[in-house]
Amino acid sequence: MTTTADSQLTESHLDADRSGADRIDAQQIEAGRRAHEVDRAHVFHSWQAQGPFDPMTVIDAEGSYVWDGEGRKLLDMSSQLVNTNIGHQHPAVVAAIQEQAGRLCTIAPQHVNDARSEAARLIAERTPGDLDHVFFTNGGADANEHAIRMARLHTGRTKVLSAYRSYHGGTQLAVNVTGDPRRFANDCSAEGIVHFMPAYPYRSYFNSTSEAEETQRALAHLEDMITLEGPGNIAALILETVPGTAGIYAPPAGYLAGVRELTAKYGIVFIADEVMAGFGRTGRWFALDHWDVTPDLITFAKGVNSGYVPLGGVAISEAIFETFRDRAYPGGLTYSGHPLACAAAVATITAMEDEGMIANADRLGEDIIGPALREMAQRHPSVGDVRGLGAFWAVELVKDRTTKEPLAAYGGSSPEMNEVIAALKAEGVLPFANFNRIHVVPPLNTPDEDVRFGLAALDRALDVADRYVTEQIRHA
Amino acid sequence: MTTTADSQLTESHLDADRSGADRIDAQQIEAGRRAHEVDRAHVFHSWQAQGPFDPMTVIDAEGSYVWDGEGRKLLDMSSQLVNTNIGHQHPAVVAAIQEQAGRLCTIAPQHVNDARSEAARLIAERTPGDLDHVFFTNGGADANEHAIRMARLHTGRTKVLSAYRSYHGGTQLAVNVTGDPRRFANDCSAEGIVHFMPAYPYRSYFNSTSEAEETQRALAHLEDMITLEGPGNIAALILETVPGTAGIYAPPAGYLAGVRELTAKYGIVFIADEVMAGFGRTGRWFALDHWDVTPDLITFAKGVNSGYVPLGGVAISEAIFETFRDRAYPGGLTYSGHPLACAAAVATITAMEDEGMIANADRLGEDIIGPALREMAQRHPSVGDVRGLGAFWAVELVKDRTTKEPLAAYGGSSPEMNEVIAALKAEGVLPFANFNRIHVVPPLNTPDEDVRFGLAALDRALDVADRYVTEQIRHA
Ligand SMILES: Cc1ncc(COP(=O)(O)O)c(C=O)c1O
Ligand SMILES: Cc1ncc(COP(=O)(O)O)c(C=O)c1O
Repeated sequence: MTTTADSQLTESHLDADRSGADRIDAQQIEAGRRAHEVDRAHVFHSWQAQGPFDPMTVIDAEGSYVWDGEGRKLLDMSSQLVNTNIGHQHPAVVAAIQEQAGRLCTIAPQHVNDARSEAARLIAERTPGDLDHVFFTNGGADANEHAIRMARLHTGRTKVLSAYRSYHGGTQLAVNVTGDPRRFANDCSAEGIVHFMPAYPYRSYFNSTSEAEETQRALAHLEDMITLEGPGNIAALILETVPGTAGIYAPPAGYLAGVRELTAKYGIVFIADEVMAGFGRTGRWFALDHWDVTPDLITFAKGVNSGYVPLGGVAISEAIFETFRDRAYPGGLTYSGHPLACAAAVATITAMEDEGMIANADRLGEDIIGPALREMAQRHPSVGDVRGLGAFWAVELVKDRTTKEPLAAYGGSSPEMNEVIAALKAEGVLPFANFNRIHVVPPLNTPDEDVRFGLAALDRALDVADRYVTEQIRHA
Repeated sequence: MTTTADSQLTESHLDADRSGADRIDAQQIEAGRRAHEVDRAHVFHSWQAQGPFDPMTVIDAEGSYVWDGEGRKLLDMSSQLVNTNIGHQHPAVVAAIQEQAGRLCTIAPQHVNDARSEAARLIAERTPGDLDHVFFTNGGADANEHAIRMARLHTGRTKVLSAYRSYHGGTQLAVNVTGDPRRFANDCSAEGIVHFMPAYPYRSYFNSTSEAEETQRALAHLEDMITLEGPGNIAALILETVPGTAGIYAPPAGYLAGVRELTAKYGIVFIADEVMAGFGRTGRWFALDHWDVTPDLITFAKGVNSGYVPLGGVAISEAIFETFRDRAYPGGLTYSGHPLACAAAVATITAMEDEGMIANADRLGEDIIGPALREMAQRHPSVGDVRGLGAFWAVELVKDRTTKEPLAAYGGSSPEMNEVIAALKAEGVLPFANFNRIHVVPPLNTPDEDVRFGLAALDRALDVADRYVTEQIRHA
């Protein structure tokens, strides 16, 4: 079912580089083998059962490629955890880190540092509305923790509304506002957290049959929740502008504007989590820019400096800043506004700007990824839905397009999905997979031919998925 | 009241460098001025009321020195936030960061990375007992958050015991286990957190009159608390081995062994927070080594790589590792085991080892800082107590040695303390101050003459404090 043109492109690409022999020598392979051994003895990994886990070794990376423990070259269609928006080892950003390291690695948050000032200025320049103050954290989880604190102190209220299926981070408060299964084992019913149903047209929780209906019903549900929880109790609503790990379902037209309106009406702080969707991923600086909505707080991390140095943060509106003008903000961290991380952000934002990466992501989505995925959806009965924007796409795999029965259950994996993932890896692609979905989330500056290579590999891997489509539908 | 020898040393030192003219040019000053302007417009700072805050600009730093916005050279007796244990811009660590940046800045936590493996190995080699597995985080707060999660899942219990006056970090769970006033504005009575009285001989909460009595009473109190909370409900006890920001009061002999015994007796996970005390600060790799106690989990950050790149983590015992051998650990973060941060840790630990920094910290405490502070305590009636070990010392200032009335109230500052701090800065010293205390916490490799310079400056600043000592005592 693979088109001939794509297939040819792929073959030549594989022929040239796939062995990795052009780059990786025996010594690196041996070092990687030792690193793997030491890893199994001493490194405790995120989200894993430590015993059976056999992690892939990465011995090198450049641009949109990584090399595994055997020296095999893989196209990184995951951008790691959807963070290397500029790809691996961007020379300008590497140079900026090296330069800053030579000048000043670290300085405490209570001082003024030029890299920190400049990063804050460049971010404030890009945020919508008057979100002109930046509190820096180390990553996405603590950005959300601090945003919720600001909202609680600003409003004097406690409750936080958050969408089911969402991911907001791994620390206690962040994982409790999270609405995906990573919350389950941690659920302490943290005080005042309430989850609502997201707008998710493909699997509507409201029996909607159109986008417009989904918007209207999801907003009505949200207002019902607010009313029933007591509007005067609710400090914040936290929402991924485009839910990421949950399935990259962009809000249907009018939804975000409606959320903005409802939160304003009830005096609730609207926190937009742009940790994954921000900094170019959707083909705009912030995903919010697609819908011209200004929240009260934006949380960010990942793309801000592609994760070259740990960094996250909260962009703060004037009104919330005012709350902490004369009253101390009761929160902080040793590495807030870390100079090395901020220098990497300055260089990353500059490189994105100079090299037109945001526009390129937009174009990749419009001209290459979107059309290719939609075309595959036509041919592959296992594809239930494809959706996305910019360099941020999801392919939802089902056993049956009518019932939408997923190829892996919510919160789980399946032998079928594992086979699809293995097929992708065998094709030389490192995918981002979650439950029954494959996400197509390459670096924003991935060359067109590499994106096409990845899509062609996906096309072939979908043949594997097709085998698990329920017989009668498949032949219908 | 200043000794002549110290005074001479100081003068010559000041004469040579204090203007900063040897290093800082007009262009750097101008850049610093602009950075300050942009900072006030866009940077939201930790723990501050943003309006009145006028942060000091740091335009350069090297070893134990920083240069402020006017190009003035200051001895960094704070190690920033007690994290630059190897001082600023250690050449070997800077080079290692630059090398790793050129090789591989970032890779997702699910892969094997050689810098991460090596950092875990070097840390595991240094932790006591079988704490041989390392979960990496971005800083101290999330290290404590994850340690508490591990303890809760390992025990199936919820409650966490923590000492009053402690600091464990700024995220929601971490700030709620914190026992110092930074918790007050955030106190959501987070589920199951219970505070107990620490062992603090100088201001005993138990009316003890000797160290032995303090140990015995503080342990009896702790066991009473455990009994009254229900031993079967308590997942963890978290304790700074040597409470840091709270006042650097080392546990009296037998206390930590007693805590280890009690927690073992009741099946409670003992989490030692070594975020500030660890990695050489006390003249040992871990402060625990002074008392030969092995907890179940150790949390670390700061000194592990001097904060050159954000990094923290949890060292995990074999028994707790076993809990997550076949069951997924439900926690994680995008930057867990960040290669750049881990490469900095490898280089930092190596430099500490190669240059004998741990032994040097021990010697500084034994031969220089301890004796000098004890001698000052004799001469300055404002000094209520001096205590510490390694490069980790506190001077507690009082208005009255008999009543121990502090020079600033718990949780506050005072004009008197501000005057002492200003005097230190005027002397060319950047101090770490908290409430009524000045901490002497220079980098572990600060040259003896610079430590002596800082101590001489402190000696003169104490003359200022002496002026506020209650008359009758002063003349007694
Ligand atoms: C939307 C969103 N928010 C928050 C986070 C948490 O970020 P971090 O892993 O840096 O804590 C993530 C991470 O994937 C995310 O995707
Ligand atoms: C003992 C202790 N624990 C935890 C922390 C929190 O570390 P971080 O600021 O990196 O979150 C600190 C910070 O000062 C600390 O001193």
